[in-house]
Amino acid sequence: MKRGDTGKPHGTGPALRGASLRDAGESGLIELLRQKHGGAARPGELPIGDDAAVVRVPGARAVLSTDLLVEGTHFSLAWFRPEEVGERALSANLSDLAAMGADPVCYLVALAAPPSTPVATVDAIYRGMARAAGPSGIRLMGGDTCRGDRLTLCLTVVGAVGRGRPVSRAGARPGDLLYVTGSPGWSRLGLALLRAGRPPRPSGWRREAMRAHLRPEARWREGRAVARSRAVAAMIDVSDGILTDLSHLLEFDGLGAVLAEESFPVSPSFRAASAALGIDPLDAFLGGGEDYELLMAVRPARRENFLRAARSFPSGATLIGAVTKAAGIRVRREDGSWLEGAALPSGFGHFAPLKRPAR
Amino acid sequence: MKRGDTGKPHGTGPALRGASLRDAGESGLIELLRQKHGGAARPGELPIGDDAAVVRVPGARAVLSTDLLVEGTHFSLAWFRPEEVGERALSANLSDLAAMGADPVCYLVALAAPPSTPVATVDAIYRGMARAAGPSGIRLMGGDTCRGDRLTLCLTVVGAVGRGRPVSRAGARPGDLLYVTGSPGWSRLGLALLRAGRPPRPSGWRREAMRAHLRPEARWREGRAVARSRAVAAMIDVSDGILTDLSHLLEFDGLGAVLAEESFPVSPSFRAASAALGIDPLDAFLGGGEDYELLMAVRPARRENFLRAARSFPSGATLIGAVTKAAGIRVRREDGSWLEGAALPSGFGHFAPLKRPAR
Repeated sequence: MKRGDTGKPHGTGPALRGASLRDAGESGLIELLRQKHGGAARPGELPIGDDAAVVRVPGARAVLSTDLLVEGTHFSLAWFRPEEVGERALSANLSDLAAMGADPVCYLVALAAPPSTPVATVDAIYRGMARAAGPSGIRLMGGDTCRGDRLTLCLTVVGAVGRGRPVSRAGARPGDLLYVTGSPGWSRLGLALLRAGRPPRPSGWRREAMRAHLRPEARWREGRAVARSRAVAAMIDVSDGILTDLSHLLEFDGLGAVLAEESFPVSPSFRAASAALGIDPLDAFLGGGEDYELLMAVRPARRENFLRAARSFPSGATLIGAVTKAAGIRVRREDGSWLEGAALPSGFGHFAPLKRPAR
Repeated sequence: MKRGDTGKPHGTGPALRGASLRDAGESGLIELLRQKHGGAARPGELPIGDDAAVVRVPGARAVLSTDLLVEGTHFSLAWFRPEEVGERALSANLSDLAAMGADPVCYLVALAAPPSTPVATVDAIYRGMARAAGPSGIRLMGGDTCRGDRLTLCLTVVGAVGRGRPVSRAGARPGDLLYVTGSPGWSRLGLALLRAGRPPRPSGWRREAMRAHLRPEARWREGRAVARSRAVAAMIDVSDGILTDLSHLLEFDGLGAVLAEESFPVSPSFRAASAALGIDPLDAFLGGGEDYELLMAVRPARRENFLRAARSFPSGATLIGAVTKAAGIRVRREDGSWLEGAALPSGFGHFAPLKRPAR
């Protein structure tokens, strides 16, 4: 098993340049993916190529998540480059591991595609995943390929909580402080920008917004530091927007929250982008998904421990509110008014009639 | 987290009877699946409902496999009942664990479906998976649901090799004895029978053939016993037919094999079924896939150990040939003639032009 040669420029190899999946065949495709993108096995492990992969799971507890992405529902190759589809997909899954405080171990990729799909497209998707894997240590260790009408990707990620403990969504209590990493909402702005027509050479806020949407970074370093510090009572990643994911965090215990707009990490550049795109910055911050930031509930008594751990966060962390005993989320605006209930921006539900176009 | 109530008859609950996924919504569907089919968490584990599942992996090595099934490519609800789709899907994945000698731990299910899909259909698919899980101990611990044009299932299974060692495809040597569990080929006969029109109340060979195709049983007990006995040098499951999977077993080491027709576990009932369906029984035995039997290479010196382990096999095991240094597979017919090369039945390749209709 060769290590994926991520250090040098990628081609698909002379034999498969310009080829479709039909030309390459299933075994040709698997061999290409294994050679170019397959992870290296460590002692006692088995990589791609057997009935199943075998990976070491330090601590003997595996953290597992799986995500299915269908062209037309989750992405479109008319909007996204194949690398971006792959990068976004693995980042979203890495984010699920981050939200448990797990160390990334490996990922599996099942892919269905029409036989006419260029091999180069599939190769680029896997290259995008390798880019998202980056220095996290997560390795491609298995998968499946088959025919299908539509490009479909199923990613499964495996993590370990060897040196920490998993941090679940449950466990928040009234009075807990709510922290969020980074600056959620940029991805929503990036989506709006792309809808208006992809700028060829974006700079300034356009660049920041596009990058947030096309190349979101999972907060695995932050999640791992949190798990090891044991300072966080409950945690979730912001994939569907702060309000939606915060309500998931609170629903386990029937709690609510108060958030203060004045504390939100909303930069002048974020406001400028919102204004240019005709989006309320508060809507983007509270309702925009796919930033993959982490939202954490911290006991006041453990705040110092948390702030010590947060010093190692590349993303930083901002206190945005507190957990309340009363259910529901209320937002105190900068002008002193309150936003709650139906006045709050809403999220995205599968199967339900679409409130906004499919992403 | 409730344990899946597999001991009593299932309905979809009054609220969702007759409902579609659009009516139920994503969260309604997830809640239904979690309550009815979700596995129970053991101490230190986290079940469905968080950012990721956490499961114990005895021995700290996880065995992982993932499979993507697309309606129209792998199955059709015009041919199969939803329970059968689920049962076949999980059995195929359990078989991958069996082929590594792993103890089944848990499975994850990602599902895409059109919003018009009846909730009852999805419920039945998961019920079928629970049926395949049976006494193996494998539990549903996570997944994903989303919209898609076509019903699509991605199953990921996790096993452990706590009390044995994984048995890979590599490791066969010239002179190794080739054993197969059960009676491969029945599933191919079942497929032919179904194509000719599903018999309403099958009996005799029709019943056996249909059961093999619709409710194949993964040999996880056999695989586990093999891993613990350490008597098997290399192993693979027969998902694409003996010839195809045997060649995968041999290709790692550039070896070949000689098989003897007289030793094949082909019963009078199997011959009668083949004759009635107009299929060469040798073709069905060598070329038929989806039986999920295990094919094993055993060193002659370890034969006694193997036979001791095989006494616990519910499926039995039959010696069908031996590994040779010369590449290629040759079959000695009962009349003393040889079958090899292009004269051998062939398998099924994704993306390649179809040689036989999609299964």
